[in-house]
Amino acid sequence: MTMRPFTSTISITEARAIIAAGMPLIARRERVALSNASGRVVAADVVAAFDVPPFNRASMDGYAVKAEDTDGASRTAPRSLMLAGRIYTGDVPTVVVTNGTCVEIATGAPMPDGADAVVMVEETSLDGDRVAVCTPVHTRQNVGPRGADISTGQTVLQSGEVLNASRVGALAALGLADVEVWSRPSVAILSTGNEIADQGQPLAPGQIYDINRFTLSTVVNEHGGVAAPISTARDTLDALDQALDECLRHDLIVFSGGSSVGERDLILDVIKRRGTVLFHGIAVKPGKPTLFGHVEGTPVFGMPGYPTSCLSNAYILLVPALRRMARLPPTLPRTMRMPLSARVTSVPNRHQFYTVRVVEGQAVPAFKASGDITSMSRADGYIEIPADVTVVEAGTEVVVTLF
Amino acid sequence: MTMRPFTSTISITEARAIIAAGMPLIARRERVALSNASGRVVAADVVAAFDVPPFNRASMDGYAVKAEDTDGASRTAPRSLMLAGRIYTGDVPTVVVTNGTCVEIATGAPMPDGADAVVMVEETSLDGDRVAVCTPVHTRQNVGPRGADISTGQTVLQSGEVLNASRVGALAALGLADVEVWSRPSVAILSTGNEIADQGQPLAPGQIYDINRFTLSTVVNEHGGVAAPISTARDTLDALDQALDECLRHDLIVFSGGSSVGERDLILDVIKRRGTVLFHGIAVKPGKPTLFGHVEGTPVFGMPGYPTSCLSNAYILLVPALRRMARLPPTLPRTMRMPLSARVTSVPNRHQFYTVRVVEGQAVPAFKASGDITSMSRADGYIEIPADVTVVEAGTEVVVTLF
Repeated sequence: MTMRPFTSTISITEARAIIAAGMPLIARRERVALSNASGRVVAADVVAAFDVPPFNRASMDGYAVKAEDTDGASRTAPRSLMLAGRIYTGDVPTVVVTNGTCVEIATGAPMPDGADAVVMVEETSLDGDRVAVCTPVHTRQNVGPRGADISTGQTVLQSGEVLNASRVGALAALGLADVEVWSRPSVAILSTGNEIADQGQPLAPGQIYDINRFTLSTVVNEHGGVAAPISTARDTLDALDQALDECLRHDLIVFSGGSSVGERDLILDVIKRRGTVLFHGIAVKPGKPTLFGHVEGTPVFGMPGYPTSCLSNAYILLVPALRRMARLPPTLPRTMRMPLSARVTSVPNRHQFYTVRVVEGQAVPAFKASGDITSMSRADGYIEIPADVTVVEAGTEVVVTLF
Repeated sequence: MTMRPFTSTISITEARAIIAAGMPLIARRERVALSNASGRVVAADVVAAFDVPPFNRASMDGYAVKAEDTDGASRTAPRSLMLAGRIYTGDVPTVVVTNGTCVEIATGAPMPDGADAVVMVEETSLDGDRVAVCTPVHTRQNVGPRGADISTGQTVLQSGEVLNASRVGALAALGLADVEVWSRPSVAILSTGNEIADQGQPLAPGQIYDINRFTLSTVVNEHGGVAAPISTARDTLDALDQALDECLRHDLIVFSGGSSVGERDLILDVIKRRGTVLFHGIAVKPGKPTLFGHVEGTPVFGMPGYPTSCLSNAYILLVPALRRMARLPPTLPRTMRMPLSARVTSVPNRHQFYTVRVVEGQAVPAFKASGDITSMSRADGYIEIPADVTVVEAGTEVVVTLF
């Protein structure tokens, strides 16, 4: 008989530190089209090769003028200017503004030579080819100067910045169709266990359907990785050894199942034999039987087989690790403060990840058991109960981290 | 001369109400694989066809026993039971537990007949085929009963729920490989204007590169839509008419450019002729020249051509509208409270969307001009200044909505 109880566990803080120290940063780069670039991490500074806008342009619809021609203009004493032409957006101006003349101009159109300001159309009235200007403008008023947005040589994006809509927009302004980004880590995801059946096949007696492959893949894809699910492996050393070979083609490996203390929990043995186990067992609930190590330089997580334990540890341990590898900043969790609706007890000396629903402004306990996926699928988020707290009373204000 | 000043604007609150009333909900459904289902909206209740787990199982590694056989057990007075067999996960138990015997069992393995509880391995010691039990267990202790997670006939997901990792996991638990969801609205995105050049071609004089197609597509794809960029249209009624025909194949249309007051701003005319303009002009800054209407039942946004005006209105008006159409709940914005680093002034009677960077715990104004994409690409988020506020002093605590 070889069931092996945990001899010791480490705190979640220690576990996080060991993982952080053990995660290499992704070193591959690739070019992606702007349309697929949001959320990606810029891998090389982007420097502007020309000015944006590339010409002085009107920033209002109105009339391009010499500002001095509008001195003292008012509703009661307008200045009258002769309309010398029109410039639409996309035009190349040929008309020149001289003293006493003006040119109708559309927002975004290039300023004509001679003009140094634009009078808004709302401040004018038109009579034939005469424009009455009812307000003075100063030099450069309502003009967007060449290079005002981006000037030649300016670093528009720095390596390490995460692309979002406006940053993609800044690349588009430079006429770029793609951008160099860090590759997303490829994450091998492997459920182990003789009881695990694949979706689409009938359950044999003693079997359950695989859950962790789907929950882990979802989390990985949402936090900068590319999930690579591997076929479910049976609980034999040979099967796991072979599966590990396939997993080693990826940047990060996440096993689930087989890291508990049963005789057939062989992942620990396989990783010990082929690499290094950095920890095995964390003082968290659920999710104690979690393992982290390295095989041939590739980090390996061994997650508990129970779906809720697996997914909660994915949120609190795998997500920060993956984002670090992907060179993404830590997530800024969406949190809400609210009173707890009912007393919650927590086991001593274990950091507890406790699922709750948000109902009428209260956090309602939703936790069932580590094995129950519905304790998470019916929840809106979770509260964390530190290892040294055993009771949280009803009415206590808690911080809910939303999924 | 036909430049048309705005005669009136409506408040952002009115604009939002008109848009909300004018957005049909998507009515198409489709099936998607679980691996692509996160973020999608369930379109039909999912009811469990069987129990999960489908059998009583051990929830700890240890020994399956008759609970009554452990009455009074302690470290000093352990109960001794005969080891009658072993059950691993995935096994079909053939052994039966009778009084005085126990069966070694792994977490997740099916309970053998006769046993009604599991003693954790940590509370036992093994000597040959005798197991010393050092603690009493009660009936059902450390047993996950059949159906405890999901019971036959239970509604596991309701129509309208948004899928996330754990909900995808609940579907996986039922052996499902796909799920029926509401289709994502297809959103036609069209930049108009003679000055707009496509990425990858050189700029002619007077031209600038298209930005809005990329920023709008990014926002649409991130909020439940599928961006369908349409070729840039020139500023003629015929070109816009033709482009509109193409756009009408989609669920929602977003034009940018051409809704200001210039003579060639023809989108207003096209929409008026073929449909209904519900508003044109909003008391916001930037982004005043925004219009909303319907053509043949399809909602149409006319966004300002200036990239920042266009994108800020995309965040504050298009995103809620699109999410509504997609049947997604409103976004829960990620906000932070912090002091403003410098005084900001705002024009009277316009709701201002003011971009800021977060630097050392302060909100640092980042706004440049409506036309400047870098005023957003260099920012981390924005503050909103209501229409009746004209000055926000340095040091004021503000709420930053992060992009």
